[in-house]
Amino acid sequence: MIIAGADLGGTHLRVGLRRAGETRLLARRSLSADPTWTPAQVVEAVAAMLEALQPTGEPLAALGFGATGDIDPEGGACWSMRRFPGLEGAPLAALLTARLGVPVQLLNDGLCAALGELRAGAGQGARDFVMVTLGTGIGGGVVLDGRLVTAARGRVGKAGHMIVDWDGPVQPTCHCGLPGCWQALAARAGLLHRARELAAAHPESLLAAGSAGVDPTPEHIAEWAAAGDPAALAVWRETGRLVGVGLANLVKLFAPERVLIGGGLAAGHPELLRAARAEIERHAIKPYQRPDVLLAALGPDAGLLGATWAPEELASHHE
Amino acid sequence: MIIAGADLGGTHLRVGLRRAGETRLLARRSLSADPTWTPAQVVEAVAAMLEALQPTGEPLAALGFGATGDIDPEGGACWSMRRFPGLEGAPLAALLTARLGVPVQLLNDGLCAALGELRAGAGQGARDFVMVTLGTGIGGGVVLDGRLVTAARGRVGKAGHMIVDWDGPVQPTCHCGLPGCWQALAARAGLLHRARELAAAHPESLLAAGSAGVDPTPEHIAEWAAAGDPAALAVWRETGRLVGVGLANLVKLFAPERVLIGGGLAAGHPELLRAARAEIERHAIKPYQRPDVLLAALGPDAGLLGATWAPEELASHHE
Repeated sequence: MIIAGADLGGTHLRVGLRRAGETRLLARRSLSADPTWTPAQVVEAVAAMLEALQPTGEPLAALGFGATGDIDPEGGACWSMRRFPGLEGAPLAALLTARLGVPVQLLNDGLCAALGELRAGAGQGARDFVMVTLGTGIGGGVVLDGRLVTAARGRVGKAGHMIVDWDGPVQPTCHCGLPGCWQALAARAGLLHRARELAAAHPESLLAAGSAGVDPTPEHIAEWAAAGDPAALAVWRETGRLVGVGLANLVKLFAPERVLIGGGLAAGHPELLRAARAEIERHAIKPYQRPDVLLAALGPDAGLLGATWAPEELASHHE
Repeated sequence: MIIAGADLGGTHLRVGLRRAGETRLLARRSLSADPTWTPAQVVEAVAAMLEALQPTGEPLAALGFGATGDIDPEGGACWSMRRFPGLEGAPLAALLTARLGVPVQLLNDGLCAALGELRAGAGQGARDFVMVTLGTGIGGGVVLDGRLVTAARGRVGKAGHMIVDWDGPVQPTCHCGLPGCWQALAARAGLLHRARELAAAHPESLLAAGSAGVDPTPEHIAEWAAAGDPAALAVWRETGRLVGVGLANLVKLFAPERVLIGGGLAAGHPELLRAARAEIERHAIKPYQRPDVLLAALGPDAGLLGATWAPEELASHHE
């Protein structure tokens, strides 16, 4: 039995096939995503890639479709598709089912990533874990008793918008407009904001020299930290601490045995993981609030791979 | 079929019986709780109350036992029993089963309260809700798809220790020692701290006059607010706002259709609920983040009644 997964990210649409009972993709394809896509064009793109991928002719059992945005797994529609305005509210599950003749399950891509890590990555063998992806925002998912815990009706929990600094400064801002969101402080914008502050405070630093007249990237800041610049190192340490504050909140809420950190920033510099671990430890008031804190294992593949488990996982929620 | 519930609170041990399929207690008993109790004494107290309660002679099917503290539903033991040091780590489930001859399920009392509201209170008819109890701390539980969502392994999530002000002032403190816990800001200690600050800032107020030389209770502050004192009203409004900040975090994580607020402070003054609602509304960035925010319906009975559903509910988690 073959299950397909699709992952519509900011820049690419990726499709892969997995044989039931296996944990790797048999085959995969990737296509540049066009911001002007209509629902019909996405459906055709998925269908064409699936046809090209099925050399064995084995029939497809189901498709899991992950996307960045406000995915309604029960309604089968995508919302808040900021990069794909033409897909706003599109009944993608029904359209894909009509075209492909198989059941289709939509799911937020952060939840797909958690599913991927559960079945084939750093969550394997864990009964419970919290996974977050650090990038422009913070997404992720929670697994308890081997099952994905979602927000109500299969939606993704907005952990990134958790307020951790309720009367803090407005900067750095979150796109929601409220001050104090975890992702504003601990994801990419927070890291870059901290870099500007520390560059100003340490004009003698590599960080300051490298930031003169240009906006450094996380990769630049990691290079300067690796070269021993204390200011650049502090950017990663302070960001890791803020990552840890929000993770500690999730550990308090869910008491998982593991915490997995994925996304582009997670492995940006080892100081981030170290500081996040220390902050989680500082918050532990119970023995079971000391999870193993690990990097996620599957990288950008987590979402695509996880999408192939979405149909089975979401069906089990309604048994 | 008769199911028993027990609720070990700070001051009383209460026991009740419920017939399966019904939503009210058939009968109940209460006993002053003795802080020096041994496990054997608690077991005997429960057994004696159950015997006195069973006039029909119908056999008991199970017992749910709720308690304040760090209850391990899988291990069947109670920890962090601050008011009952003799019960620390006691295998109460096994001891009660041995004495009573029926399955016994331990569960934190905040989770019991959420179960009670789900089956017989303000959660009836909701598919998903978040319930919190506001008192000396903040407890509660989450229901998704009609089932109680716990932390890993049936433990209670420590939402009260969620950090909402990560670099805020140390005062008011939480018993965990860290600044910025939701319950330090939004439960009883936070309300009383705010009352002292507002009394000092408004020496002409009823609040200041009533606080001179004495520590006012929440009931006093509610009376002055009801009499029109702006400072006393501000105590409830600001506390409600902080209640709302934490609830907004839970709404972001779980997207429930309802939020239930119970516990002694919840109905202390209507301004608290009003301000909490406004804060939740202010944080809503999605249509499904606008839950109905209601007072819990069962008052102090929620935990005892909910305990009678604990055996069935926890068993279903391992189906």
